[in-house]
Order: sequence, then C-alpha cells, then structure tokens
Amino acid sequence: MDRRNFIKKVGVGAAGLAAAGALGHSKALAKKGKRFNWKMTTCFPPKYPIIQPACERFAKRVGIMSDGQLKIQVFGAGELIPAMETFEAVRQGTAIKVGGSASYYWSGKIPEASFFAAFPFGFTARETYAWLFHGGGLKLWRDLYGEYNLVPFPFLNTGVQMGGWFRKEINSISDLKGLKMRVPGLGGKVYAKAGVNVVLLPIAEIYPALERGVIDACEWATPFLDIRSGFHRVAKYYYYPGWQEPGTNAEIIINKKAWESLPQHLQVIVETAAHESIIWSTAEFDTRNAEALNKIISEKKVEMRKFPDDVLKLLKKISRETMAEEAAKNPRYKKIYESAKNFQKKITNWSKIGEQAIYHAASL
Amino acid sequence: MDRRNFIKKVGVGAAGLAAAGALGHSKALAKKGKRFNWKMTTCFPPKYPIIQPACERFAKRVGIMSDGQLKIQVFGAGELIPAMETFEAVRQGTAIKVGGSASYYWSGKIPEASFFAAFPFGFTARETYAWLFHGGGLKLWRDLYGEYNLVPFPFLNTGVQMGGWFRKEINSISDLKGLKMRVPGLGGKVYAKAGVNVVLLPIAEIYPALERGVIDACEWATPFLDIRSGFHRVAKYYYYPGWQEPGTNAEIIINKKAWESLPQHLQVIVETAAHESIIWSTAEFDTRNAEALNKIISEKKVEMRKFPDDVLKLLKKISRETMAEEAAKNPRYKKIYESAKNFQKKITNWSKIGEQAIYHAASL
Repeated sequence: MDRRNFIKKVGVGAAGLAAAGALGHSKALAKKGKRFNWKMTTCFPPKYPIIQPACERFAKRVGIMSDGQLKIQVFGAGELIPAMETFEAVRQGTAIKVGGSASYYWSGKIPEASFFAAFPFGFTARETYAWLFHGGGLKLWRDLYGEYNLVPFPFLNTGVQMGGWFRKEINSISDLKGLKMRVPGLGGKVYAKAGVNVVLLPIAEIYPALERGVIDACEWATPFLDIRSGFHRVAKYYYYPGWQEPGTNAEIIINKKAWESLPQHLQVIVETAAHESIIWSTAEFDTRNAEALNKIISEKKVEMRKFPDDVLKLLKKISRETMAEEAAKNPRYKKIYESAKNFQKKITNWSKIGEQAIYHAASL
Repeated sequence: MDRRNFIKKVGVGAAGLAAAGALGHSKALAKKGKRFNWKMTTCFPPKYPIIQPACERFAKRVGIMSDGQLKIQVFGAGELIPAMETFEAVRQGTAIKVGGSASYYWSGKIPEASFFAAFPFGFTARETYAWLFHGGGLKLWRDLYGEYNLVPFPFLNTGVQMGGWFRKEINSISDLKGLKMRVPGLGGKVYAKAGVNVVLLPIAEIYPALERGVIDACEWATPFLDIRSGFHRVAKYYYYPGWQEPGTNAEIIINKKAWESLPQHLQVIVETAAHESIIWSTAEFDTRNAEALNKIISEKKVEMRKFPDDVLKLLKKISRETMAEEAAKNPRYKKIYESAKNFQKKITNWSKIGEQAIYHAASL
C-alpha cells in the first residue's frame, strides 16, 4: 500500500498529509525527534466539571503517548485570556497553540460554525459523528477553519440539552406568546419568532430572576449542568426535553502552523486522543446526566413534561426557515447546511427504526 | 498530583498500573525503548467489511503513534487459526498476542462474557460505554478476563441488530408458536421458550432455506450486514427492529503478560487506539446501516413492521427469567448481570427523556 493510501486509510487529516508530503527525508527525520511544549486555553472555567477535566485528560494522554515529546499545559478560561478570545489567540498562535471550546461560540463571526457543535432539530450525538467522520462533515469543518489558520477536532458530546425550566405548562402555541424566557443563541432566535419574549441574562443573574419571577422560564444545558445551577430549587417547575441542541459537540482547535510543524506520529497521537475523548466523555456526560435527571425527578417540585407536537412542529418550521434565510445570503453556510440536512435525511430512518424501537422496548 | 492519582485520572488500566509500579527505575528505562512485533488474529473473515478494516486501522494507528515501536500484524479468521480459537490462542500468547472478536463468542465457555457484547433488552451503544467507562463495567470485564490471562478493550459498536426477516407478520404472541426461525444465541433461547421452532443453520444455508420455505424467518445482523446477505431478494418480507442485541460491542483482547511487558506510553497508545475505534467505527456502522436500511425500504418486497407490545413484553419477561436462572447458578454471572441491570435502571430515564424525545421531534 502506498503512503498516500495508507494515510488515507488510517484517517490522518488532510493537513497532516500536506505537511508530511512537503518535507524531504532528512528534514523529516530531524523533525521527528523535536520536542514541543504547548499551551492550551479553554472556554471553560478552571473548575468546570467533565469538560475541563476532559481537556486536561486529553493533554495528559498526549504527553504520555508521546513519551513527553509533546507536552500540552492546560489553562481554564480567564487564567491566560478570557474565554471568548480563545479562537483569536489560537488562530494567531503566538503564545497559545491549542484551544478547547465549542464551535458555536464563534457563530457571531462565523454563523456556519454552529453546525459543528449543534443545531435545532439537528443531529443526536451519534448522528453527529456519523456525519463528521463518514458523511463529509469533518472535511467541511477543516476547510472552514483552515481559512482561519486553525485545525479543528471533534472532542466531546454533552448529549441532549434540555428544553428548560418553565413555571407554566406549555400546552399550546399560544402559551409561548409573551413568555419571558432566558434563552440565548439560535434557540433564542427561534423562540422569539414564535412569540416568546426572549431575555438575555448573564449566568449569575438567572437564578435571582427566576426567584423573583422576572422571567418565566430558562434554558441552560443538560440535567447534570442544570442541577448544579440549582434551578430546581427555585420554584415548582415543569422540565422539558430539548430540541435546540440535540447533541452538542465540543472542539479542540490547533493553530495550523503549529499542527503542520508536528511529525506524523504526534499528529496521529493528537487526533486519536481527541477522538477517544468523544466516547469517554460522552459516556461520562450520559452517566452524570442520568443520575442528575433521576434526582431532579425524585424531588417533588419538578414535573417532567413534553412539548406538544404542534409546538414542536412550529419551532421546527421556524428553525428551518431561519437557517434557510442565513443560507440564502452566505454560500459557506449554505454548503454546510445542505450537507448536514442531506445527511440527516439519510440517517433518520435508521435512528428511528433502530434506536427508537429499543427505547420503546426499554419502557415496556 | 501524585502518580497514582495521575494515572487514575487519565484512565490507564489497572493492569498497566501494576506493571509500571513493579518495575525499578533503570529497568523501566530499558523497557521503555524495547521494540515489539506482535501478531493479531480476528474472528472475522479477511474481507469482512467495517470490522476487519477497523482491526487493521487500529493496528496501523498503534504503529504510527508508537513511531514503529509496537508493530501489530493483523490476520483474519482462518489465516493463522480458525475464528473460534482466538480466545485460547491469545490466552496462551505463544505466537499471537492480540485478538479481535466479540465477547459473546465465548459465552459457551463463559456465559457472563455476553454482557460485554450485548444482551436482550440491554444497553444501546451509548449506554454500553457509559456502563463500561463510568458505571463499573470495564472493571468487571478486566477482572473476568484477567482470570483467563487476558486484558480486554471495548472496540466498536454495530448499533442495533435487527429483529430479522419474517415471511409472515407477527401480530400476536400466537404468531410465534411453531414459527421456524433461524436465530442463534440467547435470542434463540428466548424465542424457543416463547414457542418458536428455533433452527440452527450455518450461514451459507440460510438463503436457500429461506428460498425453499424450509424456514419462515431468520435473524442476522444490522441492515448493512443483512443487505449483503441478499435476504431481501428471497421473497416478500416483513423486516422488524431488534431487541436481542440493542448495540453490540466488539473487543480487542491482549495476552496479559504481553500487555504487562509494554512500557506505559505504549499501553496508553493501545488503549487510546482501541477506544478511538469505538467512535470512528460506530459512526461508520451508523452511516452504512442508514444507507442499507433506506435501500431495503425502497425495494418494494420489504415492509417494515414493529413487534406488538405484548410480544415484546413476553420476550422481555422470558429474557429476564433466562438471565436470572443463569445468575442463580453462577456467582460471576450474577455479579455482572446485577451491575448491568442496576446501571440500566439508572440510565433509562435519561435515554428516554433525552434521546427518545429527539427522535420523536425528528419524525414530525
């Protein structure tokens, strides 16, 4: 098997291929033994659970696997730079070569980046990696981030982000009208179009706003992250499953020049450690989310509800219209949106007929 | 952070810890640079899709990451030894140090090994890794295989194995009585107790037996593997989603002494490559299963059906009774079964309320 096919077969990224091909033999040998000390900054507070430890675990495993040849020192948000400067700092690559984040944090600047984290009525966790690894998604992501001098890696999945905490039941579309809800991002845009009075509040102000009845509802994250915020203690709540982020993927981003400076074995070590984290950390989120959800349900204040089908249908329709509007004015967005949409069409039957039947059987 | 905590945090296996701890410093340094050439044998034919390439991909990535220090040469079933001798050959570790298989292949000898592959009304793919990595499952697996001089690694998931191909609709429990069905393993036992006339046939004889009407139904695998067998061409069929294997995990097994002879960085490379394969190859199965299922549905001969709830309830009841019977006479089986059962109780709400709601929304 020739080198090209070999590398293709084992799934080394296109960026790595180019770097390896461009080097002569002796230069490549010198490069092989070079040692690297990199800094990594993340968008997560130093004590943030599961995600920040996953970043540290990634860096440590890279260090061990490379027998110390590639050392990555991890800093949480604010330790070196603020969270939202991660993309720019890694892109410049001056002091920091690696970032830990989620692509939709950059959607203000690059709306199409969202598809590699989550999108409304989009992919479940498992569907996300089917699209990325075997449906062309990762190639699109690498092309997009390549324009910003970055190489991205899928990294971790939180699972379904819940629909949120509601002080009133949502029994029909009219219950959305005028509802004061804290919900950011694309989900917020969609709710606003459906008549919700969307309120933007910094994290620290959500709890008191709920307590004083300034807002009627809030969306935060998964049960494990929700329960830490203590929302379930504020009042009697209806807790709804989600639709706005069906399986949110986090990312590792690496400065492209720094990436290309790595010999091939270190590139494969980094890529493998990032991918490995997906299965390890998604399993961790699933376990902790399960425990938290059971606890939320067992506390008498919270009742589980489901959005009625007509509400979901409306939110889905608005979600698609909103994404189609963006696609109409942004060719890069359109290309990625259509790839995701077409892959979703392809995989839906399998998810429904395979997985959903199992969940049904489990509930009997 | 001390070594113990560090290693615990990055998730290096217990076997690796013991090996590293037992070595003095100079011995450890000599060990560090040692080169290894290992043979790996699998239970899959050399041309078998997805699974055999995943074994080759695993070995190649280990070779690259270790910069040639650990070379693993992969052989398919029958190339060195027959498939079903894999466990014994790797256990002895004379010529072959690594195996690629699925733990329920060894259930004739070790019934409790099945839980690490799949069990009726058991874990979905995602739940499987939650249990293994964060619910104590992997520890139980390592303890069990440790008794056989083996170290196991989870490796790949096929997704849901379908319920199978039926020439008659199953509308009630009475439709199972006397049905001639080819279905092996624990699924077969359960069907037999439900009144099915279970027929055991080698793979090559299933197609002609279906064609001549010698059997009424057969269970094989996932849509991607089913379609390759051509069953959908034999006759008009009803195709049912599964319950007997909700997400089948394959395994890498390594001779324990060989594993302990590896320096720590090679151990972490092997472990990381095996775990990475889970997300990569499960995504591949999901993609190919989705494509195959769409093709099966679009061919007019096949109609999708669901087992009625009373049929599923009966099969579930019999499954649990069958597993409980085995647990009553086998303490190792009991321990693993109870761990799996308790973890399933814990995670079911999350799977249902999180994932199932997403599938429902996707179908609107």
